[in-house]
Amino acid sequence: MSLVFADRLKNVETSAIRELFKLLGTPGIISFAGGFPDPAMFDVEGIKQASSKALNEEAAGALQYGATEGYNPLREQLCAFMSSKPDSHIGAAVNLRPEELIVTTGSQQGLDLLGKTMISPGDKVIVEGPTFLATIQCFRLYGAELISAPVDANGVDTEALELLIAEHKPKFVYLIPTFGNPSGALLSLARRQKVLELALKYRTLIVEDDPYGDLYFGAAPPPSLLALSASVPGSREFLVYCGSLSKVLSPGLRIGWMVAPPQLLANATMCKQFSDAHTSTFAQATAAQYLKAGRMPATLQNVRTVYAERAAVMGAAITRELGDAVAFTQPEGGLFFWARLTGAGGKTVDAGAFAKKAITELVAFVPGAPFYAANPDLATFRLSFATADVAKIEEGVSRLARAL
Amino acid sequence: MSLVFADRLKNVETSAIRELFKLLGTPGIISFAGGFPDPAMFDVEGIKQASSKALNEEAAGALQYGATEGYNPLREQLCAFMSSKPDSHIGAAVNLRPEELIVTTGSQQGLDLLGKTMISPGDKVIVEGPTFLATIQCFRLYGAELISAPVDANGVDTEALELLIAEHKPKFVYLIPTFGNPSGALLSLARRQKVLELALKYRTLIVEDDPYGDLYFGAAPPPSLLALSASVPGSREFLVYCGSLSKVLSPGLRIGWMVAPPQLLANATMCKQFSDAHTSTFAQATAAQYLKAGRMPATLQNVRTVYAERAAVMGAAITRELGDAVAFTQPEGGLFFWARLTGAGGKTVDAGAFAKKAITELVAFVPGAPFYAANPDLATFRLSFATADVAKIEEGVSRLARAL
Repeated sequence: MSLVFADRLKNVETSAIRELFKLLGTPGIISFAGGFPDPAMFDVEGIKQASSKALNEEAAGALQYGATEGYNPLREQLCAFMSSKPDSHIGAAVNLRPEELIVTTGSQQGLDLLGKTMISPGDKVIVEGPTFLATIQCFRLYGAELISAPVDANGVDTEALELLIAEHKPKFVYLIPTFGNPSGALLSLARRQKVLELALKYRTLIVEDDPYGDLYFGAAPPPSLLALSASVPGSREFLVYCGSLSKVLSPGLRIGWMVAPPQLLANATMCKQFSDAHTSTFAQATAAQYLKAGRMPATLQNVRTVYAERAAVMGAAITRELGDAVAFTQPEGGLFFWARLTGAGGKTVDAGAFAKKAITELVAFVPGAPFYAANPDLATFRLSFATADVAKIEEGVSRLARAL
Repeated sequence: MSLVFADRLKNVETSAIRELFKLLGTPGIISFAGGFPDPAMFDVEGIKQASSKALNEEAAGALQYGATEGYNPLREQLCAFMSSKPDSHIGAAVNLRPEELIVTTGSQQGLDLLGKTMISPGDKVIVEGPTFLATIQCFRLYGAELISAPVDANGVDTEALELLIAEHKPKFVYLIPTFGNPSGALLSLARRQKVLELALKYRTLIVEDDPYGDLYFGAAPPPSLLALSASVPGSREFLVYCGSLSKVLSPGLRIGWMVAPPQLLANATMCKQFSDAHTSTFAQATAAQYLKAGRMPATLQNVRTVYAERAAVMGAAITRELGDAVAFTQPEGGLFFWARLTGAGGKTVDAGAFAKKAITELVAFVPGAPFYAANPDLATFRLSFATADVAKIEEGVSRLARAL
C-alpha cells in the first residue's frame, strides 16, 4: 500500500547526518560526532539510591498517572536547584515557584510543545545560524519559516538580530545563549541585556534553551536571560526558559523543564496532555529524590572537571595537529568545538568532504551545514569532546590531521 | 503581553471534564471518574527489582541517550510478551519482530505520532461514537475532521462504518475494539473480520488501540485485529496497533508501543525524534527487566481477578440501587461501565446534571457527551470500577441512587 502522509513531513529532509551516524558503529572508530555525555560519568550509585527511595517512599506517586504539569516534588526540587546555584547563572534572583514551570520529556519536548503551542504554518521564527539541528527540524514540522541570525564567538549578533526582528516580526526568537550547540559560543553580558531590551521593545517572545549552562570550565558564565530578566523590568513576561538534566545527570531519565508566561504554560500543558499525558513519574520521582539527596553539586563539579580537561586537550591537539588549516575559538564550557576550515596550505574548505575522508581514517564528526536554517557555511564543522577520553581525543585529532 | 498562539489550538475546547476533575480532591469523595489503575495493585517489589537489575547490569544503556525507535532489549521483550500470551488475543500468529514496533511514551504518544505523521488539516478520521476523549483532542490538534461511527455492545457497527468509509475516504479509522473506553464494548469476531475486509476493500488504514485487551474477566476476548490479520491476507499492511503497559503494570513508566507498516513506522520515528528524542531509557530498561523476569503472568492474573470482582459488584449494585432508571451492558473486561439514563420513573435523562448532583452526594463520574466527536448522547455516562475497592463501589453506587 502507498500511504499519503501529512503535508508537514514535506518540510523536513531526511538528514544527511543520519547516514553519517549509521557509520559510527564501525569498529575502532573514534567519534566526535554525538553530543552524548560520557556514561563513565553517570552517578549510577546515586541514581540507584534515588530510584529505590522513590519506590520505597512514594510508590503510588512514582508508578501512577501524574499531573501533566509535572510531579510536584520534582517541580519543587527543580526550583530549588535553579535558585540555589553558587554562581549567578540562574541565581536566587529568579525566585522561581513550582507553578511557573512544567516538566517536559527531555528539553526536546519543550521545543516540541513550543512548536505545537505557538507555530502556525507560515509563521516566522528566528534562530541562530548555526543552531541545534533538532530545533530546526522540530519547528519546521509545525510549518515554521526559519530566519537565521548570525552568530560569532560572543553569541548572536544583536544588531543583526534587531534588524531581523523588525523586518520579520517573528513568533519568537530561539537562542542557546550559553555554550551554544553547535557554536560553543557564550553570549556576552552586554548582548544578553540587549536581547531582553529587544524583547521589550518589539514585544517579542524569546526562548532561552539552556542545557549546557552548568557545564562551565572556569568562571561561571553571565546570568541566564531568565536571571537577568529581573534587572530589565517587564522582560520576564516575554521569556521562555528550557532546562534539562540530560547533560549534567542522565539523558536516559528524559527530564527537562520549561519556564514560561502563565498563558503560554497553560496552553503548552494542554498540548502536552495530548502528546504524552505526562512525563514518566517513575523518572520524575527518581530525579526528585536525587536532587533532594544533595548529590548534584558534586556531580556537576565532576562533570565540569572532566570536560574542562578534555576541552583543553582537544584545543591543544587541534592547534598542534591541524595548525592554521582550522580556525576555532576555545570553548569555555559546554560540549562542543565549532571550527572552520581556512583553506590554508591549499587544504579543502569543504567540511562535508573532510567528514567523509575522516571516516576512512576512523574518526567521525559532523559537518556544519545542516546546523544552518539558511545560507550554510560549508567550511564549518562540529567536534564534541564529551564522549571520548583524553587519549582518544589525542588519537582522534591525529587522524583528523591525516584526513585533512 | 498578549500572545498569539497557533491556530490549531482553536480546534480544541477546554474540557468540561477538567472542571469536574478539579473537584475530585474534595474530602470523602468516591471517584468513578478516572481510568486510573488501583495503586494497591502495583507490583512495587517486582518493579524495584527490575529497576535495580537494569542499573546494575546495563547502567550505560539505561541512563544514556537511546535509539528513537526504542531500547532493543525492551522491543524484544514486548514481542515475546505479545506472542506468548496463553490466550489468542494477540497470539503466536502475530510472530512480531522487534523492528516492527517502536516504543512510545505511553500509548498517548502513539496517538500523537499518528496525528503528526498522518493528519493534514482538514483530513477526515473516523472514530467510534463514543471514543477516548484524549484521542478526539489529540487528532483535532492536528486539524483532523472527525467522523463518528455508531457503537453498540458488540463494538462499532461495521455496516455503518462501511458507509462512512465509502463516503468520507478517511485518512484512517481509529478503533478500541477490546473493552473500549468509554463504551466497555467488545467488538465481535465477525465484526473484527469485517473491519479487516473493509481495510482491504477500501485500502484504508485501521488503527487498533488496545490498552485493555489483557483485562478480561472470563474467557479471553476474540483475537486482536493484529492477530486476526494473519487470516485476512494483505490486511496487515493496513493495520496499526497501539499497546500499553499502563493498565497492566504501571502508567508511571509511560511505556507504550506501536506496530505499523514499515513506511509509517519510519515516518513516526522521524516525528518522534523531534517530539522527545526517545522514551526514557531508564523506564524502558526497567520494563524490559520486569518482562524478562517473568512476573507479568501473575501480575495480569491478579489484576484480572480484582477488576472482575469490582465489575461484578458494581453491576449488581447498579441494578439493585438504580433499577430501570439506568441501562447498561455488563462489561466482560476493561475498566469501565458505560450506562444510559432511561428516564424511567420520570428521572432525569441529563447525565451532565446528574454528574453535578452526584458531586454534592460525594460521588463522581464522567458524563458521556465529551466522548462523542459529534452528536453526543446526553443521557450517557461512564463509571470506572478500577480505582475504588468493593466497599467504596457499594457506597458510591448508593450515593448515585440518592443523587438520582
